[in-house]
Amino acid sequence: MHDGSEQNVPPVVVPPGSYPRFADRHIGPDHSARKAMLATLGHDSLRSLTDAAVPALIADRSLDLPLALDEPAVLAALRALGRANRPVPSMIGLGFHPAVMPGVIQRNVLENPAWYTAYTPYQPEISQGRLEALLNFQTMITDLTGLAVAGASLLDEPTAAAEAMQIALRRARGGRRVYLVDADTLPQTIAVVATRAEALGATVHLVDLSDGPSGGDGLAAVPAELLDAAFGLLVSYPGPSGALREHREVFARARERGLLVTVAADLLALTLLRSPGELGADIAVGSTQRFGLPLSFGGPHAGYLAVRSGLERTLPGRLVGVSIDAAGDPAYRLTLQTREQHIRREKATSNICTAQVLPAVLASMYAVYHGPQGLAGIARRVHGLAVRLAEGLRVGGVTLGDSSFFDTVIAAAPGRAGEVVAAALEHGVNIRLVDDDHVGISCNETTVEADLRAVWAAFGVPPAAAAEVTAQAELDGPIPTTTAVALPTELVRTDRYLEHPVFHEHRSETAMLRYLRRLSDLDLALDRGMIPLGSCTMKLNATTEMAAVTWPEFADIHPYAPLDQAAGYLTLIRDLEEWLARITGYAGVSVQPNAGSQGELAGLLAIRAYHRDHTPAGAPVRDVCLIPSSAHGTNAASAAMAGMRVVVVACDADGNVDLDDLARAARTHTEVLAALMVTYPSTHGVYEEGIGQACALVHEAGGLVYVDGANLNALVGLAKPGQFGADVSHLNLHKTFCIPHGGGGPGVGPVAVGEKLLPYLPNHPLRAEAGPATGVGPISGSPWGSAGILMIPWAYIQMMGADGLREATSVAVLNANYIAHRLRPHYPVLYSGRGGLVAHECILDLRPLTRATGVTVDDVAKRLIDYGFHAPTMSFPVAGTLMVEPTESEDLGEIDRFCDAMTAIRAEADKVGDGTWPLEDNPLRNAPHTAAMVTADEWAHPYPRSVAAYPVATLRTGKYWPPVRRIDGAYGDRNLMCTCPPVASFAEPVDEPATLATVG
Amino acid sequence: MHDGSEQNVPPVVVPPGSYPRFADRHIGPDHSARKAMLATLGHDSLRSLTDAAVPALIADRSLDLPLALDEPAVLAALRALGRANRPVPSMIGLGFHPAVMPGVIQRNVLENPAWYTAYTPYQPEISQGRLEALLNFQTMITDLTGLAVAGASLLDEPTAAAEAMQIALRRARGGRRVYLVDADTLPQTIAVVATRAEALGATVHLVDLSDGPSGGDGLAAVPAELLDAAFGLLVSYPGPSGALREHREVFARARERGLLVTVAADLLALTLLRSPGELGADIAVGSTQRFGLPLSFGGPHAGYLAVRSGLERTLPGRLVGVSIDAAGDPAYRLTLQTREQHIRREKATSNICTAQVLPAVLASMYAVYHGPQGLAGIARRVHGLAVRLAEGLRVGGVTLGDSSFFDTVIAAAPGRAGEVVAAALEHGVNIRLVDDDHVGISCNETTVEADLRAVWAAFGVPPAAAAEVTAQAELDGPIPTTTAVALPTELVRTDRYLEHPVFHEHRSETAMLRYLRRLSDLDLALDRGMIPLGSCTMKLNATTEMAAVTWPEFADIHPYAPLDQAAGYLTLIRDLEEWLARITGYAGVSVQPNAGSQGELAGLLAIRAYHRDHTPAGAPVRDVCLIPSSAHGTNAASAAMAGMRVVVVACDADGNVDLDDLARAARTHTEVLAALMVTYPSTHGVYEEGIGQACALVHEAGGLVYVDGANLNALVGLAKPGQFGADVSHLNLHKTFCIPHGGGGPGVGPVAVGEKLLPYLPNHPLRAEAGPATGVGPISGSPWGSAGILMIPWAYIQMMGADGLREATSVAVLNANYIAHRLRPHYPVLYSGRGGLVAHECILDLRPLTRATGVTVDDVAKRLIDYGFHAPTMSFPVAGTLMVEPTESEDLGEIDRFCDAMTAIRAEADKVGDGTWPLEDNPLRNAPHTAAMVTADEWAHPYPRSVAAYPVATLRTGKYWPPVRRIDGAYGDRNLMCTCPPVASFAEPVDEPATLATVG
Repeated sequence: MHDGSEQNVPPVVVPPGSYPRFADRHIGPDHSARKAMLATLGHDSLRSLTDAAVPALIADRSLDLPLALDEPAVLAALRALGRANRPVPSMIGLGFHPAVMPGVIQRNVLENPAWYTAYTPYQPEISQGRLEALLNFQTMITDLTGLAVAGASLLDEPTAAAEAMQIALRRARGGRRVYLVDADTLPQTIAVVATRAEALGATVHLVDLSDGPSGGDGLAAVPAELLDAAFGLLVSYPGPSGALREHREVFARARERGLLVTVAADLLALTLLRSPGELGADIAVGSTQRFGLPLSFGGPHAGYLAVRSGLERTLPGRLVGVSIDAAGDPAYRLTLQTREQHIRREKATSNICTAQVLPAVLASMYAVYHGPQGLAGIARRVHGLAVRLAEGLRVGGVTLGDSSFFDTVIAAAPGRAGEVVAAALEHGVNIRLVDDDHVGISCNETTVEADLRAVWAAFGVPPAAAAEVTAQAELDGPIPTTTAVALPTELVRTDRYLEHPVFHEHRSETAMLRYLRRLSDLDLALDRGMIPLGSCTMKLNATTEMAAVTWPEFADIHPYAPLDQAAGYLTLIRDLEEWLARITGYAGVSVQPNAGSQGELAGLLAIRAYHRDHTPAGAPVRDVCLIPSSAHGTNAASAAMAGMRVVVVACDADGNVDLDDLARAARTHTEVLAALMVTYPSTHGVYEEGIGQACALVHEAGGLVYVDGANLNALVGLAKPGQFGADVSHLNLHKTFCIPHGGGGPGVGPVAVGEKLLPYLPNHPLRAEAGPATGVGPISGSPWGSAGILMIPWAYIQMMGADGLREATSVAVLNANYIAHRLRPHYPVLYSGRGGLVAHECILDLRPLTRATGVTVDDVAKRLIDYGFHAPTMSFPVAGTLMVEPTESEDLGEIDRFCDAMTAIRAEADKVGDGTWPLEDNPLRNAPHTAAMVTADEWAHPYPRSVAAYPVATLRTGKYWPPVRRIDGAYGDRNLMCTCPPVASFAEPVDEPATLATVG
Repeated sequence: MHDGSEQNVPPVVVPPGSYPRFADRHIGPDHSARKAMLATLGHDSLRSLTDAAVPALIADRSLDLPLALDEPAVLAALRALGRANRPVPSMIGLGFHPAVMPGVIQRNVLENPAWYTAYTPYQPEISQGRLEALLNFQTMITDLTGLAVAGASLLDEPTAAAEAMQIALRRARGGRRVYLVDADTLPQTIAVVATRAEALGATVHLVDLSDGPSGGDGLAAVPAELLDAAFGLLVSYPGPSGALREHREVFARARERGLLVTVAADLLALTLLRSPGELGADIAVGSTQRFGLPLSFGGPHAGYLAVRSGLERTLPGRLVGVSIDAAGDPAYRLTLQTREQHIRREKATSNICTAQVLPAVLASMYAVYHGPQGLAGIARRVHGLAVRLAEGLRVGGVTLGDSSFFDTVIAAAPGRAGEVVAAALEHGVNIRLVDDDHVGISCNETTVEADLRAVWAAFGVPPAAAAEVTAQAELDGPIPTTTAVALPTELVRTDRYLEHPVFHEHRSETAMLRYLRRLSDLDLALDRGMIPLGSCTMKLNATTEMAAVTWPEFADIHPYAPLDQAAGYLTLIRDLEEWLARITGYAGVSVQPNAGSQGELAGLLAIRAYHRDHTPAGAPVRDVCLIPSSAHGTNAASAAMAGMRVVVVACDADGNVDLDDLARAARTHTEVLAALMVTYPSTHGVYEEGIGQACALVHEAGGLVYVDGANLNALVGLAKPGQFGADVSHLNLHKTFCIPHGGGGPGVGPVAVGEKLLPYLPNHPLRAEAGPATGVGPISGSPWGSAGILMIPWAYIQMMGADGLREATSVAVLNANYIAHRLRPHYPVLYSGRGGLVAHECILDLRPLTRATGVTVDDVAKRLIDYGFHAPTMSFPVAGTLMVEPTESEDLGEIDRFCDAMTAIRAEADKVGDGTWPLEDNPLRNAPHTAAMVTADEWAHPYPRSVAAYPVATLRTGKYWPPVRRIDGAYGDRNLMCTCPPVASFAEPVDEPATLATVG
């Protein structure tokens, strides 16, 4: 297999190893291609190439990992792990409810590479399908919450609640620093909000709104001085008690006092209940999990955040908007996106970059498929079951909590709540232990009669009594007539929602299937061609890695299920954390952060906590974070969220961190230096020689070093950040470790730390096992974050093994250098390192071309669509450039096809430069060309249609036609980014030491 | 949900039943759409419509089926059935070997609606993707077998062997009627060939070729008179003994004596062994199962048949060929297809229609992904394991069979073979009981070291001895150096194969994924739009129905595994057979026939056997089968294969069976009348009033009635053939019961019989449980046929329930009548029944239009592609017509879109008629238009490009572009059929009674 020979070797000449290695499937170029590519670079082996590229001081090829398994063996191992989990029907609730994902959606979205291998829709012309799906999501959220604008998903309910708190905090006047939170709120939400608040100098204060009369002023009991200090209020609707209260008056009073009111609302309940908007909320947050998403031991699920009119510009994360294209036709695009990191101000309060696009698409499709009647039907059924459950308990003499509820009942079991929970499990269901005297039971879409009987039996309700309720229920039909009793009349929803035709036209499976197919066909994803996005690492997402994601053994585990029901997950998580630590050279890893941005925050909070514990009393607070000007935008935003002040360090002419400037900054801020935050290899795509020296400089000044793991795909098996000077990193499992980008999420951003930061990893209020007791609190809502997709990196590492991983890194470097070599004659390569080599990506400088011809980065990027390619990263980290990262998974054929396209485009640009084609009417400026444009009856352009449509012959079969023309550039330019934008925009010139503050 | 209201009903007004009914997902038109459609037809309910359409004499709305389950409940039930199966690593062999389907192929072909919902590629312009895949299949087969031409798959190895026998029989000279079969041949192959031979008046004679010297004349021991009577020879390579012998000399001698030589060859072995072609075979047959297909308790798998040059025109089934399109570009198409049924001769000897396209595509992609080196590597590994297995047994003192073998070893266990098999199972593997004294063990792609140890342990090989072999193996690497010993040097393959680039360019998973996506994008399947093929019933293939097909609990069961390991399958099969019997009103059902054609044969053989047992000695043989001129082509071919003589009965002017002609024919042939074979509703799409009378006429004459179940989708829940006069039917589970067409297979064609034919159902030589001991023998190779897809109809029936099924039938009738109503003003509807109503399909007569304008059926069909539609059935059963069957799954929006397209096309045709556009250059004649054509720099047509590309505005988003223009019509016209062609071409005028013959 591996000798590159095309001979059919007679069987008597037996080569070693005949079963296909997974690494040979994952890595694009085969051995003969590698040989040819290496030859063009003047190297005779991958080893020689990487030895030349990676500074000897940091090189470390050791990797202690299990032997590689082949694909069937890994599937068998995953099945064994799955069997070690034990899905039990869950009535635990607490923000997570079993739900039914319609098969047509599971197969054609969640299991379809056309959806899950797509990138974030920064190039809207090739993303109209998922943009429409996200617009559906936003419509669904705004309709159900009754608010004006909703973003295209956040990470989960707790982080969405934290973002809402930050919106309120940013608007706080007069130094208000208290955030009031309804005590009847999910514990993970309270904890995440508190963690975030603490870093920003705010405090969470719990208020009991249940004492006030329903409809009255529940805030009456809150001391006046607390109210005066408060900038916002978070109320749950309903909370973990399940109780429904009409808080319209509370909201009005709070708003009068200048508090921003956020409601954490259950989306399914909202199909029956008056919307937060109608009740007077400013913001609504929550989870869309129960719209068909599996529990998956905690995630990934899409959170939502919606705001009333007037707060649009405060929305964190991504927002899809409708615009027009060059032909004046409507077209979708991201709008106002990630502006938190765009705006040139140091008070950035959100670092959100990755969203949960794939879960959001799934949830939106659940609403499209069921429509308003279907959703309300499911809600009524769930509510009806809860009413019957309560009735049975009441008949059996059990004391219940509030008489108004949607799906959750709190039942008293004085002194024996633990016994009742155990008995329920005996009878086949998990219910929730509230305290020694109470249990909680939540009904859901999958609840059946037998589950109710199990709960009744656990309480010892006499079978005859239970039978009576059941008999009555059978007479009543699926929904008992007692419904009106449990939903307060004043909260019953009366307005319409989801009236847009999209929620009505796809009711048959056939219609739904075609809608999903039609949308996916509009988009370009990895299943059609290379996505050479620098810094995004768009590599293969292998089917074997993805397979277990939808297996019930993994999908159907509640995050708060007894841990012996999740033994498979725990083994998998322990393995993965251990392997990631070995790969990166750190002492420990937490997989909890459910996006890179959260990993950054976790890492910086760990540094902050470390300094807190190690700074002598009275000494100034170490809160300055040095960040090179080339860094990712999230870096600065995360630093701000961790309560740090950002100081930008310059880069030298070669694009490297300016060590002199770094030394100067470290000296200037030496007493308050918290950290250096640097990406390695740099965002310029180069292995910088000075990384060791930079780390040393910072350590000498008492700071810690944060190495952003965004470019880890250039390090695995070649060097270890935890060994060459860094104290902490976050990793992007959706880049280096094969979790698909999902069209813009879910990602997973584990934080990896050295020995001294181990006590400061994230933890979780409901799971002592999820992190150290001394930890910084939860970063994400679930104990192990998006546990439900950790099978992907686990399988990847298992199948690659140490040699395979190192080979992958080496080929990634080879592919990038081969492209740099081929394109250098046409576009200067901006930066390179040792021996003229780049790392795993290269920056093509288009500024000379633009000066000479007027052809812009945009023109080239859009023209690539006509050639069938997704554009490289545009103008990051340097304006006027394209950053190309092929990854190891692209084979020589595809890479050559890309280089041919770029070369042909250069020749087209020259025709603009030499006046053959006018600057305002040429194939580049008019790109991308739609089929409608090229088949129009009139054609008045100075180049023929064939040049527009088929600039190279290989396009004649299977050409991708974009559905829209170029989308209005005035909005588009700034947003068309692969990654969060450059940190430089955050920088205020730092001429003097930042103001000192003292440790509490 | 079901009230058709678009209101959000407040929750206090509780409607019954809130969880979505599956029937509402399966059926397209919702209640308000149905109401509107019924109104246009002058009916106020489905009941009123169907009462009007279905003759009262046969109407029977009773259906005794289990209550409908919702989708989650059915998935849970399927999981429970799966758990009742117990997959055990199988070393049973006997033609079925565990194999590894690469994940990328499983997910992107087998689990992808774009592949599995496609129809047979009779419309080549919209089928280039699967045609290319099938061409790859043919290339793979011809290369590996060393023969000139291979078809695009047959049903399985045994039926392929039977087809080969028929080819030989057809060429037999001088009344030769003996077929020699190597005794070392799979028992199921021998039995299927014998069943087929018997019906054709031939006999199978087993010959022992193992006695002759290898390389010598193994036929020497065959008596001369037998050789003189023989027309063919079937040899296995290797057979169930595993032994490899060089039969070059045998083949030469046989051919000299005029025998056609067929080799049943193992495709994986052929990667290492000299090809049948090189050894001198005329024909090769076999299974492609072990190229990645799951065992699935016996199927579906693709069989293959290849022939030497000169025999091309004898090939049964489908053959893909390369042709050119209107632009002169290469294009794939079916060629010489199903010509067995085209040729105007009564000696049709194949009724093959459906193939196994989806399994064939999967097997071909396995070869594309592994390439020749990969395949040979797998083969070498399998062989190496077998060699080690043998070595361990030998060291342990076990006596072995032949010293030359590929993957199978026969081991002696005198008097205790049963014990050894049981012990092996104890140790974790299934092996084969050959007889009391021998067991067989076959290695395969999934075999691991532990399996070898299990076998050794079962034989009591001392662990130390086994350890020694293992240790030596570890020294040797995966393939021991003893390889040369077990493969005879003279059989080691030396030529190259699979040198075409397609077998070399898709070695990485990324490349493979893109290849699969690119091919699927070329095709139009149900996931993009309606496929209104009359008689083909292209309805929804719901995801929930499909889900279990790839679950290991079903996929990994060997057809000859101990039955207690297949308890889930047995329950499912028993349920399904019972439900199908109730639905059709018959006494019993066998699911064994793995295609409609095989079901027909099974039914006719049952009739034949019945007459054999019930005809007085000396009386003439009842062998005349009456078939109406409108019947499916397979009917006549099946009758011929069952040894019957076909007599065609005329139709009257209304398209109904001419009862007078039928009576005349029954009288004429009264002594020899075997059967009437009729489709109901007729292939004219009408519920004929006279069906009862027709049945009575035939019964009176002593014949039995066969009702072809092709149109059962118009009967389920409305009438039962087994109750209105028929004695036997076959059903097409791939039409009425939701098995997807898979681009041309697999299908399943159960045979359903009344009480008197129960003893004559198919059975199986290796499974007494599969049918009655008095049965007609096996029709297909596996005991329960394509058991691995029976979960689909099982789930469909479970989810629909009686009411849902009846509703589906009623809406199918509604949809067809609505289309007839809408299109009648533009195209006359050829036939209708009671009240001017059609059944579930309607025939549009294009002949007046063609006469008036010159626009042909072809022009309209190809122009529909420009509108985004697959054409209806062309010129069947009446030349110059289109037959439209919408099924119940198409909703009103799609149906209206289709009617709008047909109406617009009619207007276009009128422009040809009135001279606006010339006959030879207009949008219809030039259809379909490719993107390349419409974007060409030159445009010289008398209509604008916009008319070519976007005749209606809705096409502007997501238009399907065909990859090729119209494919050369001279070849195409006759082959472009949805079904097997009309039987009329078989008919010789029957003026006198057919010749009499006497029983035995």
